[in-house]
Amino acid sequence: MKSLTELSELIHQSVNNLQFPQQPSGLYDPVRYMLSLGGKRMRPILTLMACDAFNGEVKAAIPPALGVEVFHNFTLLHDDIMDNAPLRRSKPTVHEKWNSNIAILAGDAMFVEACQLVMNAPSNSVKEVMSVFTKTALEVCEGQQYDMDFESMENVTIDQYIDMIRLKTAVLLGASLKMGALVAEANISDANHLYDFGVNLGIAFQLQDDILDVYGDADHFGKQVGGDILANKKTYLLITALEKAQGDLKSELLQWISSTDKSDNKVNAVTSIYDKLNVRMIAEEKMQQLYNEALLHLEAIPIPEASKQPLKDLADSLMNRKN
Amino acid sequence: MKSLTELSELIHQSVNNLQFPQQPSGLYDPVRYMLSLGGKRMRPILTLMACDAFNGEVKAAIPPALGVEVFHNFTLLHDDIMDNAPLRRSKPTVHEKWNSNIAILAGDAMFVEACQLVMNAPSNSVKEVMSVFTKTALEVCEGQQYDMDFESMENVTIDQYIDMIRLKTAVLLGASLKMGALVAEANISDANHLYDFGVNLGIAFQLQDDILDVYGDADHFGKQVGGDILANKKTYLLITALEKAQGDLKSELLQWISSTDKSDNKVNAVTSIYDKLNVRMIAEEKMQQLYNEALLHLEAIPIPEASKQPLKDLADSLMNRKN
Repeated sequence: MKSLTELSELIHQSVNNLQFPQQPSGLYDPVRYMLSLGGKRMRPILTLMACDAFNGEVKAAIPPALGVEVFHNFTLLHDDIMDNAPLRRSKPTVHEKWNSNIAILAGDAMFVEACQLVMNAPSNSVKEVMSVFTKTALEVCEGQQYDMDFESMENVTIDQYIDMIRLKTAVLLGASLKMGALVAEANISDANHLYDFGVNLGIAFQLQDDILDVYGDADHFGKQVGGDILANKKTYLLITALEKAQGDLKSELLQWISSTDKSDNKVNAVTSIYDKLNVRMIAEEKMQQLYNEALLHLEAIPIPEASKQPLKDLADSLMNRKN
Repeated sequence: MKSLTELSELIHQSVNNLQFPQQPSGLYDPVRYMLSLGGKRMRPILTLMACDAFNGEVKAAIPPALGVEVFHNFTLLHDDIMDNAPLRRSKPTVHEKWNSNIAILAGDAMFVEACQLVMNAPSNSVKEVMSVFTKTALEVCEGQQYDMDFESMENVTIDQYIDMIRLKTAVLLGASLKMGALVAEANISDANHLYDFGVNLGIAFQLQDDILDVYGDADHFGKQVGGDILANKKTYLLITALEKAQGDLKSELLQWISSTDKSDNKVNAVTSIYDKLNVRMIAEEKMQQLYNEALLHLEAIPIPEASKQPLKDLADSLMNRKN
């Protein structure tokens, strides 16, 4: 088994080696810029790790792994336009550095590049790998649409929220793993268990994001603590609080989330309501439950424990992160 | 051989039968709307026609043909955002009827759907078909980028302009044909001749668009005659005129194209300059030359004349259109 460090280095190197045409520079400079902003490259690492776990040739999984990473960056690029986000990884977003039209088109080109990379999977598995990839790409669009829909909806249920983050975030983690397993020609049942491992882990990961946004250590978190609260974002914490709160507490919460106050007062007040309602514990329990569910799927795969260890280690590090 | 009418009916029916999920409606309603706006469906018809010309099973070419049509509509959707166009086929554009974010995301989803359709090409040819499709998709992005670049460039040469319309418009016609030929398992040299037939025809088609915009019959043309002149659009006619004009005539032309005048005066004045410089004839000669070049590629393909007839008829009808 290759270690997380080895696979991570391999992917970072491969992303750095990606070549795009020089002209038209108005199209490809933003693509290069977007991919230069860095990131953990978690998704392509998962693809290689899955391939390795089933004794596949890791090198053969590199092109589809890169396809997943380029696709992920394409979604970030277009999401940033839709969210009107000024910064991505502390650098100006593409639509800020250039303009929206450039960002739309560069994103489109990245999606084409992603398809081309995925199509370079080995012949034996390319049809299945591409099928997982396109199915997932469409689901990610659906997740983004639900996320936008939720902004203007008064009542979003916990189930609707979980389904949204499943589509927007988690299925791509599942697909990254499944694609690697398919390259290694794992059987479909095992590949699906790995997919479910990834999806459950992905939902747990997003819940943890919601928790860290409020309860994270500002030094480690890397962004403003309480950002979701200030943006009145419907997170697992807020939706849970809205379901639990009654009487005066509910009125108080509703009042805060209808205000555009951007001060620490608001963060402190809403956090205090969350505390009274035990929202953090509820979210952590849900996260733990999803994490356990993920591990059950990993356990169901009949490969040696040693083959699963890097996946377990990665899951563990994701669940115990501080940012 | 199936007739143009038969293939056209088959494609219109197949486009109408395309199914998209009901939810999230915010994502799929705009997709359905965009595809309901109609059009000649020229590209998918070319795919079926090419397949038929090589005695392939036309039915097997329907999914990739639909993929090309959905892709084409995706490019129109995103181009409309970039051009800030209010109307598409006399109906509100998607970003006008909904908003830009909806239009970006619906376009993204359409591109994924297009990939899925192309991937439903027969197993024997799917890899080659998909490779032509993605290569072309990237070229279309490049063409759009050059088109945007040209807006702010002072000097665009005829060669640069031809290359831009080749990428933005013509390669997709060539690819539509080549994909159909590949589904029919034509040999690569024949498939490439058909591609070159389509590309030359496509460039000629775009030059004709430029000519019709100025010299078209308003009753037939379906949009305002002189629209390109009012928008100071760098067309084949304007670039040729800028290359040819000298002295006072050049000053007069430069003055008109630096003005934002939206009156018939401007259309008449610029048309009169074009007339003095014989620009229409130059454009028509270039168009005819490209059309002849296209036919040479068709002639080079060793299949019965009868098999080529529908392609010749279509080319002929495109070159003799009034709108």
